[in-house]
This record gives sequence, structure tokens and C-alpha cells, in this order.
Amino acid sequence: MTQHGPTTGREWRLVSRPQGMPVPTDFELVEVEVPPPAAGEVLVRNLFLSVDPYMRGRMSEAKSYAAPYELGKVMYGGAVGEVVASTVDTHRVGDLVLHQQAWRDVAAGPAKEFKVVDRLVPPSQYLGALGMPGLTAYAGLLRVAGFQPGETVFVSGAAGAVGSLVGQLVKAHGGTAIGSAGSAEKVAWLTGELGFDAAFDYKAGPVADQLAAAAPDGIDVYFDNVGGEHLEAAIGALKVHGRAAICGMISAYNATTPPAAPRNLMQVVGKRLRIEGLLVWDHHDLEDEFLAEVGPMVADGRIVAQETVVDGLEHAVDAFLGLLVGSNTGKMVVRVEG
Amino acid sequence: MTQHGPTTGREWRLVSRPQGMPVPTDFELVEVEVPPPAAGEVLVRNLFLSVDPYMRGRMSEAKSYAAPYELGKVMYGGAVGEVVASTVDTHRVGDLVLHQQAWRDVAAGPAKEFKVVDRLVPPSQYLGALGMPGLTAYAGLLRVAGFQPGETVFVSGAAGAVGSLVGQLVKAHGGTAIGSAGSAEKVAWLTGELGFDAAFDYKAGPVADQLAAAAPDGIDVYFDNVGGEHLEAAIGALKVHGRAAICGMISAYNATTPPAAPRNLMQVVGKRLRIEGLLVWDHHDLEDEFLAEVGPMVADGRIVAQETVVDGLEHAVDAFLGLLVGSNTGKMVVRVEG
Repeated sequence: MTQHGPTTGREWRLVSRPQGMPVPTDFELVEVEVPPPAAGEVLVRNLFLSVDPYMRGRMSEAKSYAAPYELGKVMYGGAVGEVVASTVDTHRVGDLVLHQQAWRDVAAGPAKEFKVVDRLVPPSQYLGALGMPGLTAYAGLLRVAGFQPGETVFVSGAAGAVGSLVGQLVKAHGGTAIGSAGSAEKVAWLTGELGFDAAFDYKAGPVADQLAAAAPDGIDVYFDNVGGEHLEAAIGALKVHGRAAICGMISAYNATTPPAAPRNLMQVVGKRLRIEGLLVWDHHDLEDEFLAEVGPMVADGRIVAQETVVDGLEHAVDAFLGLLVGSNTGKMVVRVEG
Repeated sequence: MTQHGPTTGREWRLVSRPQGMPVPTDFELVEVEVPPPAAGEVLVRNLFLSVDPYMRGRMSEAKSYAAPYELGKVMYGGAVGEVVASTVDTHRVGDLVLHQQAWRDVAAGPAKEFKVVDRLVPPSQYLGALGMPGLTAYAGLLRVAGFQPGETVFVSGAAGAVGSLVGQLVKAHGGTAIGSAGSAEKVAWLTGELGFDAAFDYKAGPVADQLAAAAPDGIDVYFDNVGGEHLEAAIGALKVHGRAAICGMISAYNATTPPAAPRNLMQVVGKRLRIEGLLVWDHHDLEDEFLAEVGPMVADGRIVAQETVVDGLEHAVDAFLGLLVGSNTGKMVVRVEG
């Protein structure tokens, strides 16, 4: 089916580069006309948009591992939507598709940029537990950090999209999971609902002290989503031949001066620690294995795929800003039609 | 042959724990009586003692990967000597032996603690190019950092015992070697005698600027002997999937406050860097391979086994203090009989 005539859509553009914490006026919601799909293209109405910590990096001009968002242009990011018009047999109207044209309600482009997915789980979970954050947790824990059953893992940002998966994968693979989060409620959720062995509120006292209390014998693996004081505490707690997978350092994303670095980094020598950065891009070869193992556990609830849903495309920036201060539990997503 | 009656020897003891840079009064040279070897033991007259940066760590009380030196007791360390009395067939008088009872002229103990070595190279080289520093360079470069032919390696402390071997191994394996050292003379020696592709004097300007000039396309591997500003510069210069083997951080050994840590550590994520600590202890399984490859190259001069020799046991502390401020080129050793 081909749709005739343009469709009206809305998209979020970056209009100024944030200094420190972004503010709403750095963004603008604009109405646009989306032309009907040309040959080989599809038109998609987005159901859910992803907001993720990495997007803060894209808002800065500084060279990074990916191109920065362009000023005055729509921002990109993960989304899941339904095909509403198609020119190809592989994508039929009504198909659920996963793609990277987010921060908008109507997406269009070459069909190959839209991956058709099944409906075994609610659509938004393809942005979270079964999507990029889930694969990040899986690859970071099992491949980069080389986690082995019986080991003790500390994960920061444990109530977030990636961290909550890390802890649950540790438990599913026979390890001890210790998490930090930013409120007593999140801590209770980690040990109550998710089965973490221990958790603490990093705002309630020094991370090093709380980690030592939770893991008196030390840790084998640190999964870092936070950086700063957390990384320093983890380096102190890591055992000989311990590994740290560095997934993100959200504590530093809005810093306007270089963030505090671990003063105890010299311990990497004596303890022969390995500190390794992690980007999900490098690990798409694990995707089939990941979906085969984690998909059924999410579908039947053995793994809790917690989400914080913000309703309405017009609140996407609010959702993103909330993410940066930890107002989410689990994956933060935006339901396009609020 | 068994010797009858005690032998008089001298040994260096640590008598106070240094605060910051050690001073001569932290040490004391004492005369001792060494009893004749009991059954299963040998008596050894040391020819050369090793002084190494790691010894600074042993002088502090802080828990480390090895026990601290005890106050009022002789310090340990590598040495090479000759058997002067033996009770076992495996060790004959005149045999050259390598062992860990240094900071003294006469050593005694169970024969199994004294490894008999051949005389294919001058004895002192078993403390340097063919000893612990050599194996450290070999294992750190080839195993920990995973160096591959064609890659560019930056090594700090490049004129030292380990660093000078790292650069020469890089060249022997078909890579590009870039080194930093602490004087124009050392820099000239690195590029002149040792075949480094580039080198710079870290005291002559910011490390990051000089490294960028020497390696405009970045580096694949950083071999760290220095830490601090060097590590930060290396993180900035490492390419995607670059590796840093952390062998030591001599810039921090005498620090009385926590040393500066790399403010750009967040780059490990975007560039998926691996930073890994290195202790030679973990790599003794490589010793045969190392000696088979590097031994002949040292013996025939393809690898320069440079030494700085300080004469006289009574100057061992001077040698050690000199090492900490970089007065050596190549391996610093003490010839016991000056």
C-alpha cells in the first residue's frame, strides 16, 4: 500500500548546545510535512521513543564516538513503531518495527533501516530489556567483564535500564548482585522485586563505606554506569584480577569542568585490574544469543522489564531531563500518543 | 663442599618508613654473621644487586600486593651471585645463581630458592634485559597489551630497564615505537642507539602536545611506567580499541597526597579502551618463550641491554634514590664489590 500526499508530523530539534545540565529552551518541537514513501521506503508511526543517557553526549559539539546532533535538526534515537505505508514486501502495514529515527512521531526512509520485530513482548520493551540497554547489559557483563558464576558483581545506576538488567542477569547466572541507586525506594525495589543480594542509596553516605559493608570480601566485577566516586570505590573494592566494564559515567555528563578521576587508580597494578570501555555497537554479534536467552525470561516475567513511561511526544524533553537526574526506575520511554 | 664457621656479611636494613621521597637515614648498613649452610642449603656471594622502582612500595606500611619490608630487617630484592659453599649436588661452587635475597653481599638459604643460570650473557643482565624487567616488558607488551605487528606503541620511562626493552621489542616485532624520557641525552639515545621511531623529553613541554606531534595518527598501545600526566595524554591519544598496560606509576610513588588521575578517563567508553594492570608474577609461564626469543638477541647485541652500574654495596641506597629521580639509563644495578 502506498499513501498519497504528505503526512503531518512533529519532531524535536536541538536548537542550542547545553552548557552543563540541559534546559527546555535548548530544544524545540516543530511541525513538519513528511512526504509519502518513495520506492523501497516505508512510512512509520512511532509508538514509543527511547531517551537514553548517551544522548547527552550527542548534544555537545565535542568529537565523540558518534557524530553530534546537528543544531536546528531533528535528533536521532531508538524508537518502535508501526508501518502505516510501505512500498516493499518485507514490511507490511501494521508490522512492528524498531529503528533509530526517534524524537518524532512520523518516521520515513529506506525499509532496511526499519527492523521488523515480533510482538512476543509489549512494543516498548524492544527499547529496553530486549533492546539496546538489554544487549548492553548482556555483552558488558558476560563478554567485556567476563563474569563467571559464583562471582560478586557491583553495578551502579542499578535501578536504570541497563543496571537493572545487569543485576538480574547476575542472579540468573548464579552470582551475587550488589547495586547502588539514588533513593531508598529504588534500593527497596532492587532487593525486593529484582532479587539483588544487597543495595544501597549512594546519597545516604560515602559509596566506599556502603560498598564495603555490602561486599566485605570485595567484588570481582564492577559494571559502571556512573563514574566518579562510584568508580573510585569500586577500584578499592575489586579483588585481584577484578574487572570493570565501563558502560557510562552519568555523573560526568553534565560536568562543565573535568570530572573527578579515581585517585586510587594505581591499584590497577598491584591487583592487576582490567578496566574496559563498552559500547553496544561492538557486540551485535551476540544479539541472537541474547534474545534467545533473555527473551523468554522477559516474556514470562522471570526478568522484570521495568519501565517509566512518560506520555506524549510533547513531554519527550521532560523525560530526558528526568532521566539525567534519576527520576526513572528501569527504562525511561516516551509514549508518543499521550 | 661445606664451609666451616660463620661468614661475615653486610646487609641494608630499612630503619624508618619514608614519607615522600626516601632519604639516606631511612636505611642502615649493618654487619652480620652468616652461619655455614645447613643440609640442603647453599651460601652465595652476591655479584650484583637489583634496585627497582617497585621497592619504593615495599618501604611503605600500606597493604599492597606484597608484604612491606619490615623495619629493622634486611630488605629483599633480586640479585645474582656465585655459590661459595653448597650441601647439594644441584648447586656447585662457582655456579652463577639468581635469587631474591638482595640488599646484602652474602646470601644463604635453601638451594631451591637459588636458580642456577648459564653465563651466556654478563651476570648482571639476569637482573635486567634477561630478568624480571625483560620478562615484564615481554609479557606486558605481547600478552597484556596484545600488541600486534604494525601497531604504534607509546612507552613512558622509555630509557629505563623495562621501557628500553619495550621499545626494542616493538621494533623487533614490526611496530612503531615512541618513547618519553627525562633528558635530551636519553631521548637522543632512544632514537639513536635503540631505534625508537620517535622520542621526547617530558620535561620539555606538555606530554599531550609532544605525544600528538610524535604520533599524529594516535597510538594503539600505551605501556605505562609513569602514570599521572603521561597516562592522561596516552588516553587522549589512544585509538578506538586501544590498550594500556599499566606496569608502574613512578610519578606517584613518592606522592604524599593522592596523585592526579586522568581527567579524560571517560574516553574509555567511546573508544572502548582497555586499561590493565601488569605484574610479572602472573607471567612466569612465558619465561622459556621469552628467554628463547630475547636471549639470543641480547647475546648478539641486536637488543641493547643498557645498564647503569653503581659500584659498592655501600652505595646501594644512593643507586636506589638515583633510580627514583631517573639518574639511570637502562637497568640500574649495584656491583657489590665496588
